[in-house]
Amino acid sequence: MSTTTRGLEDVVASPSSICFIDGNKGILAYRGYDIHDLAERSTFEETAYLLWFGKLPTSAELSALKRDLTAALTLPAPVQKLLETFKATAPQASPMDTLRTMVSSLGLYDPDAADMSREANVRKSIRLLGQTAALVANLDRVRKAKPMVAPATGVSLAGNFLYMLNGERPSPTAERAFDIALILHADHEFNASTFAARVTAATLSDIHSAVTSAIGALKGPLHGGANQAVINLLLKVGDNDPIAYIQDLIARKVKIPGFGHRVYHTEDPRATHLRQLSRELCQAAGLSKLYEHSQQIEDYIKREKKLNPNVDFYSASAYYAMGISPDLYTPIFAVSRMSGWTAHVLEQYSDNRLIRPRAEYIGPQVPQNYVPLNQR
Amino acid sequence: MSTTTRGLEDVVASPSSICFIDGNKGILAYRGYDIHDLAERSTFEETAYLLWFGKLPTSAELSALKRDLTAALTLPAPVQKLLETFKATAPQASPMDTLRTMVSSLGLYDPDAADMSREANVRKSIRLLGQTAALVANLDRVRKAKPMVAPATGVSLAGNFLYMLNGERPSPTAERAFDIALILHADHEFNASTFAARVTAATLSDIHSAVTSAIGALKGPLHGGANQAVINLLLKVGDNDPIAYIQDLIARKVKIPGFGHRVYHTEDPRATHLRQLSRELCQAAGLSKLYEHSQQIEDYIKREKKLNPNVDFYSASAYYAMGISPDLYTPIFAVSRMSGWTAHVLEQYSDNRLIRPRAEYIGPQVPQNYVPLNQR
Repeated sequence: MSTTTRGLEDVVASPSSICFIDGNKGILAYRGYDIHDLAERSTFEETAYLLWFGKLPTSAELSALKRDLTAALTLPAPVQKLLETFKATAPQASPMDTLRTMVSSLGLYDPDAADMSREANVRKSIRLLGQTAALVANLDRVRKAKPMVAPATGVSLAGNFLYMLNGERPSPTAERAFDIALILHADHEFNASTFAARVTAATLSDIHSAVTSAIGALKGPLHGGANQAVINLLLKVGDNDPIAYIQDLIARKVKIPGFGHRVYHTEDPRATHLRQLSRELCQAAGLSKLYEHSQQIEDYIKREKKLNPNVDFYSASAYYAMGISPDLYTPIFAVSRMSGWTAHVLEQYSDNRLIRPRAEYIGPQVPQNYVPLNQR
Repeated sequence: MSTTTRGLEDVVASPSSICFIDGNKGILAYRGYDIHDLAERSTFEETAYLLWFGKLPTSAELSALKRDLTAALTLPAPVQKLLETFKATAPQASPMDTLRTMVSSLGLYDPDAADMSREANVRKSIRLLGQTAALVANLDRVRKAKPMVAPATGVSLAGNFLYMLNGERPSPTAERAFDIALILHADHEFNASTFAARVTAATLSDIHSAVTSAIGALKGPLHGGANQAVINLLLKVGDNDPIAYIQDLIARKVKIPGFGHRVYHTEDPRATHLRQLSRELCQAAGLSKLYEHSQQIEDYIKREKKLNPNVDFYSASAYYAMGISPDLYTPIFAVSRMSGWTAHVLEQYSDNRLIRPRAEYIGPQVPQNYVPLNQR
């Protein structure tokens, strides 16, 4: 056996052709396409197609995908009903807990649930992406006692999500900004949630099991949960001096969310775009101070801690400026990453090997002497 | 970065003091106690206590644990209701899919859901073990349109599970046999489901998320799903010659379930006990042929393939002889392993590091030239 590598840092678990990261140069590419090109020139539907199929779609392929995604925005009736059950019986539940349970339940109603063919798993991947978007929008409607909104036809997933969430069609600017955010969050190699999905899929369990694992992992504050922690911090700063607030946190050894990354040692290329989106959206929403505080915090942490903002730091203020409830930021991350998770599950199935590492045993000497209960 | 180790075979992911395996000598120990001592002299409740707390309980500690476990056998009312909803709306769903969704839903109703203290996570671990046993028994009652059975007091978890499943108290022999099966399945170091739980917990996500990931991973036929595959094979053999049947499968390159293990290169010490349980239970149930066929298959595979039976091979015929429906074998594995999963999650929290490996990129060269949609 090898020596222990805690957290599997820099351990290469498997080959993969989905995502390339150069953490020193700050390069991220999906299937070879640089994230900057995709953010500037592509759409989220194109990006999801690219992740699943390894190439950009033709017009006909893209139309078919958009049609399938829109169809998936209408949830099975018992699943919609479950959202109301949970609202009535567990009103305090966190949206990520509800989302994890709801996505798991989708497996009970999927017509392809037991079909492990590549074709069926592709169909399930497309459905899961649309359904997850619908679940997040619908759960917010239901908990706010507002009627669920049926999806519009001929609209992007980003546009439909915002429409189903808010009950009114977003501005083209908001739709495009949200679309870019979805592109930027779509995949990131063997991040913890994707790796949880692959560990699950590698027992040849089904795709619903795999993405349910991923949602559970994404929830953690060391992963997707960080974007909610960032907005909570910014809101606590309020009108106060952000630097004084941050200095106090650092003095009390509180981790500042949204900074640092296991893989990047330079600027996270996703942060470059999200910073710009945050600036534009905050300005348009009359929240320039939120953006300015973010930037002051970034400058301070860079200087004092030598840490760069990650994908979570500027997405927080960007989503806030779009009027989205803070506890939906991590669920929205799940909507986007569902494209990457399912692409990785398909890849895992295509050349599978059980993922089963070893532990370094540091417990009591073997064997311990078993003392009967009445002599303890 | 290191070179790629597919499936993380022999890669040491973390220190752990829970489970010791010597795959060459066939030694398995929980917290230093040899599995043979535990199977012969301990109970499942003692074993669960040992896994969680690192020592065998005193009488008072054991009584308190039994009381808490029995209390957890009564599910929250909305969770019981969900079982009926799923029976009505998804009658074809596999029990593992239902179990995954139900265990995830437990997080919505747990009074300690958002409390990440060690004390709260221990309380949640104990509850999850009892609740999972109740879920498996109740889901079988509900799908068979039988009334759910309330747990008895002062009865072991094994005894209560069989009582709640069958509606009548098991014989002392059956209760003890089932108790031993639970002990044998309780933990196994960084097996795939436990590792999925630890990957999830390592983002500092909650324990319900972690064990939901584990259930999803356990479902796969390369992991817990194998015990159901074994009984399906034995039932297909029926009164025919098992060797001819197996030879035909091997000729068609079909994997024989229940044989071989990533870690053991000699007899799996759990199989030693399960073989004996299978013999006794099959004999008592008038199913000696099932045991004999199992043994003939074992001899053949050992000789021809140099593979030993694993934990799944003889548990299949043992559970069948107890009259348990084959599609509950993997859920029963989950009941037992819930003790180990939660012990590992507690250990992960106690000294956490994000589990985030890397991929070996083998995809298209970076950057690919982005061709606009209308030019594709």
